[in-house]
Amino acid sequence: MTVKFALLGAGRIGKVHARAISGNADAKLVAVADAFAEAAQAIAVTYGCAVRTIDEIETANDIDAVVVCTPTDTHADLIERFARAGKAVFCEKPIDLDLGRVKACLKVVEETGTTLMVGFNRRFDPHFSAVRAAIDEGSIGKVEMVQITSRDPGPPPATYIKSSGGILRDMTIHDFDMARFLLGEEPDTVFATASVLVDPEIGELGDHDSVSVVLATASGKQCAISNSRRATYGYDQRIEVLGEKGAISAENQRPVSIEIATGEGFTRPPLHDFFMTRYTEAYAAEMAAFIEAIGGGKTASPSGDDGLKALALADAAYRSLKEGRAVKVSEVLA
Amino acid sequence: MTVKFALLGAGRIGKVHARAISGNADAKLVAVADAFAEAAQAIAVTYGCAVRTIDEIETANDIDAVVVCTPTDTHADLIERFARAGKAVFCEKPIDLDLGRVKACLKVVEETGTTLMVGFNRRFDPHFSAVRAAIDEGSIGKVEMVQITSRDPGPPPATYIKSSGGILRDMTIHDFDMARFLLGEEPDTVFATASVLVDPEIGELGDHDSVSVVLATASGKQCAISNSRRATYGYDQRIEVLGEKGAISAENQRPVSIEIATGEGFTRPPLHDFFMTRYTEAYAAEMAAFIEAIGGGKTASPSGDDGLKALALADAAYRSLKEGRAVKVSEVLA
Amino acid sequence: MTVKFALLGAGRIGKVHARAISGNADAKLVAVADAFAEAAQAIAVTYGCAVRTIDEIETANDIDAVVVCTPTDTHADLIERFARAGKAVFCEKPIDLDLGRVKACLKVVEETGTTLMVGFNRRFDPHFSAVRAAIDEGSIGKVEMVQITSRDPGPPPATYIKSSGGILRDMTIHDFDMARFLLGEEPDTVFATASVLVDPEIGELGDHDSVSVVLATASGKQCAISNSRRATYGYDQRIEVLGEKGAISAENQRPVSIEIATGEGFTRPPLHDFFMTRYTEAYAAEMAAFIEAIGGGKTASPSGDDGLKALALADAAYRSLKEGRAVKVSEVLA
Amino acid sequence: MTVKFALLGAGRIGKVHARAISGNADAKLVAVADAFAEAAQAIAVTYGCAVRTIDEIETANDIDAVVVCTPTDTHADLIERFARAGKAVFCEKPIDLDLGRVKACLKVVEETGTTLMVGFNRRFDPHFSAVRAAIDEGSIGKVEMVQITSRDPGPPPATYIKSSGGILRDMTIHDFDMARFLLGEEPDTVFATASVLVDPEIGELGDHDSVSVVLATASGKQCAISNSRRATYGYDQRIEVLGEKGAISAENQRPVSIEIATGEGFTRPPLHDFFMTRYTEAYAAEMAAFIEAIGGGKTASPSGDDGLKALALADAAYRSLKEGRAVKVSEVLA
Repeated sequence: MTVKFALLGAGRIGKVHARAISGNADAKLVAVADAFAEAAQAIAVTYGCAVRTIDEIETANDIDAVVVCTPTDTHADLIERFARAGKAVFCEKPIDLDLGRVKACLKVVEETGTTLMVGFNRRFDPHFSAVRAAIDEGSIGKVEMVQITSRDPGPPPATYIKSSGGILRDMTIHDFDMARFLLGEEPDTVFATASVLVDPEIGELGDHDSVSVVLATASGKQCAISNSRRATYGYDQRIEVLGEKGAISAENQRPVSIEIATGEGFTRPPLHDFFMTRYTEAYAAEMAAFIEAIGGGKTASPSGDDGLKALALADAAYRSLKEGRAVKVSEVLA
Repeated sequence: MTVKFALLGAGRIGKVHARAISGNADAKLVAVADAFAEAAQAIAVTYGCAVRTIDEIETANDIDAVVVCTPTDTHADLIERFARAGKAVFCEKPIDLDLGRVKACLKVVEETGTTLMVGFNRRFDPHFSAVRAAIDEGSIGKVEMVQITSRDPGPPPATYIKSSGGILRDMTIHDFDMARFLLGEEPDTVFATASVLVDPEIGELGDHDSVSVVLATASGKQCAISNSRRATYGYDQRIEVLGEKGAISAENQRPVSIEIATGEGFTRPPLHDFFMTRYTEAYAAEMAAFIEAIGGGKTASPSGDDGLKALALADAAYRSLKEGRAVKVSEVLA
Repeated sequence: MTVKFALLGAGRIGKVHARAISGNADAKLVAVADAFAEAAQAIAVTYGCAVRTIDEIETANDIDAVVVCTPTDTHADLIERFARAGKAVFCEKPIDLDLGRVKACLKVVEETGTTLMVGFNRRFDPHFSAVRAAIDEGSIGKVEMVQITSRDPGPPPATYIKSSGGILRDMTIHDFDMARFLLGEEPDTVFATASVLVDPEIGELGDHDSVSVVLATASGKQCAISNSRRATYGYDQRIEVLGEKGAISAENQRPVSIEIATGEGFTRPPLHDFFMTRYTEAYAAEMAAFIEAIGGGKTASPSGDDGLKALALADAAYRSLKEGRAVKVSEVLA
Repeated sequence: MTVKFALLGAGRIGKVHARAISGNADAKLVAVADAFAEAAQAIAVTYGCAVRTIDEIETANDIDAVVVCTPTDTHADLIERFARAGKAVFCEKPIDLDLGRVKACLKVVEETGTTLMVGFNRRFDPHFSAVRAAIDEGSIGKVEMVQITSRDPGPPPATYIKSSGGILRDMTIHDFDMARFLLGEEPDTVFATASVLVDPEIGELGDHDSVSVVLATASGKQCAISNSRRATYGYDQRIEVLGEKGAISAENQRPVSIEIATGEGFTRPPLHDFFMTRYTEAYAAEMAAFIEAIGGGKTASPSGDDGLKALALADAAYRSLKEGRAVKVSEVLA
């Protein structure tokens, strides 16, 4: 079976997904929609698909699934519309910045029985998924402590920061998902510290650029997350897991791995400088998993509930920031 | 401009090039030919091209370039035919196993003025090409010594060994090309030692499986090559260059780079186990360079002459094996 | 000038210091005292020094400096006694488990003007001190975030745990000192999470074995500390510092660094399994610094005040554990 | 039992051995002799031993063993004298630069039954000895190919080069010994290439500075050696062994192993810049093995015969250089 796709949103991440769909032997990109005609047209030309409106896609018989890459504040509405239209939905994170809105949206998804997958792409990185696989195989026994280091090469533009929901919801949320993916138990308390060390303008916009978070589960497992919006040496993405029998780590990736040795020392080039090149394989594997879930009637994972829970951790972290204490997740998510 | 391609030979390496062509925005795979109809058909279905005979391709107006992936003993003939037909030619190494035949073929290529590129894919590996770029930038000054380690995960089947021309012509030849690529000066003497350590059957077929070669240039630069047809830990492909101001190295690549630490030690997974996954990026970059050469009227590199010179080094190495002495390249290539 | 030493306490760490003193060309071990005559005698034989009582050492004319390696609850008293006796004092951490007692002791030290150095040996590790030197040279600009991973191969015996003051005072205290050493600014808030994941007996004794701590300074610099009393792969001691212009890391050390590659992967041996072999060079450099401070009239560092401040961070961390909130250091140290 | 030592020769390497002896609990440095009174005096003061003449040491009753660190052309004579005097002898390599003289000397050693050990210190490096131990444990099965990279930070002074016997006898000889140590079978042919790339003065003195050697055993095992008298990045000492079941490697060592990451890349400091700091542990372990051999009546290893065989490989390599062919070891060593 070939899954027929429509892409909603032809921006940067939309292009990533268009490539992943067109490179998958079991999928076909049939249509693309975007408020900017030129952006849609560019995708249409490159991948040989039609430009349509969202309304047309909603009622089309030749579309099995949609990929939602539109602005965040349209996600929940589009999920509901296409769930009701009987399409499988892949939605970029987050479903919404408001927990209540997410819950309402997931209720609709549940009622319609549609397949919904949320874009936590890092679960599909071959290195990170190998960490999880090694845990599942028992190579380090019971997981005890997780350390996640996640730093962007540089801060996003002010326009992005204004509407992102804050660093904990736009950046740390990936790490919250990764923590849940690896801990094997839900975090039940959150402590967060954040400051503005990179760029004062970020502070003026009410956001932070440097974050440390500690999560703890009921049984005492711990996860520490370290974020910064600046790492001059590239896109710093590392994971470590300590277990009763050992530890697993996934190191940074670089596009070119030569080493030059001189009297000054031994130098390797910087890391990837962009999430798209760092996670190329992850995006392809993510879309393949979505296609497989649709085709095989499997439950899509990460699910809408995974999106909800990661957002709840971000909300709890914001309350922790404000009140200077460890916050129970149950305080924000009944 | 879009370069229109025909693929001659739909085997393993043919598929690699078909994918590279179809993934290149400036190229289109128009036709495929293979003695085995099913093999050609499989490529045709996957990439949406026509199945044709070699004769049809030779006279077609909608073909700009051919990729020669047929058995070695057909290479020189096909290069000549398609050069005369006015097509650009990309030919898998070697042009022929006989130096005289290669020279005759290159004469035809020269007379027709066609673009010919030989498939020494490793020059396009991002890591190895970065080594060369670092040399060219002067980061280690004048090159003095090169070390190339090149080992296959396991030996090829006996059928391959029978017609390969021997390990020095099928395997070491890549390293001879890499030596020339990095030394910046032609090797003028060759010494080789070879033995059968991996599999006695290889010896019974008149071939070797373990090789050490030392090349020297007129100014005294040295290159050591180490080959084996077996490396249990994966496809071992490394380069080191020592220069007056320092050294450059390109380390091995592995598909998954996690590390698991236990009381037994710290373990990373094996290397790539196949040249296709190891050199995925190299094959794409190689085809892109060929397309660029055709489109931009640039000289293709590696050229037919590069193919000739690498083969001459292999011939000199065989004479060295036989006579137990350092052989001048000029003894085999006037 | 040769500094003449007496060693107070001939246990495990006493032996380490005896070796460091006797290996230093500017020092001489003159006497040793220990409640257990055999322990003192063993040191005396190995290093050719006298066995004496503490009283004899206190009044001896041939002793310039003492090294205090006796049980923790005797440290403050001995520091005061020997400060008043005009001897320079090197004291193993901690000065005392009670902040008030430490303050009183340091008052005596100040009044007598004696040289006091506290045994935070890790500052003298060549790798960690190189991290600090690189910061001081400006290689990463202003420090923003520090990550310290510090895990013991296995838990200490129950007898040790009973009198250690708890993991935050016996183990994390080294990391508190390292945080202060690297942040370049005093931490002013502390958050700690701790649990019992390694051994239930540790919990029954009222202690923890797994700890995550987050420190923050007034300007927003952050430090995350990760501790465990068990790391099957060896003594895990790592530091990372993120700054505005880059990052510095100090990796783990192993006594033997070969790598064995097979079809199962690439395996390096475990890390050091003991703090004494891991920090051999640090102990020698630490004692050399003390000797230099005495001889050159320099202020010893880490000082008594460094001991006080690290202990205050531990106290704040315990209050954080109890109250589930970020605690100001000023709440515990006026 | 404590072995009582006299040191013959108080130069650079003499100091290394004096330290190793005095740091060994089973040995005592009793006397030192040197043609330069000041050099002997310096050792005597540091280690508390007597200055004596060689004649006095020869007849002394309180000396069990001598360490020969005098100029090369005195080695064989001294070995013979002290063998006849009933002392155990540790001699720095080489025994002599002339194979015939070495053989005559070893005949005397054999007749007297004295314990003779030759200073191939690298066998005692903890990393290289772990490579050998891993081979012996069968971790890679039968050894097939060995690669030894051995490069000095910079060339020695002209005075040294004049009397060293040439790079193959002063530098490569360590690698010849290492090849024998690891191959598990005697090399029976030698091919060598050498040139002058580092410093023309070296060529004017009749020596080379850049060497590639290939050794082969009767069963076809191969060993490639790469030497240079210049490596700007430090003392480059690496070993790789390929076997039927895998490979073992021993990487370079550096005194400080931090890494600094900036926009320019990730940089680690240079390697050790001196053989004494690189091989500190090896020198101590080497002397311990000699002491154990004396005390326990064990055969010392590496033996005089090991010294002879490594020198024979150097002689064969020089003949190979001259004649441009692979030379049988039996051509130089009957």
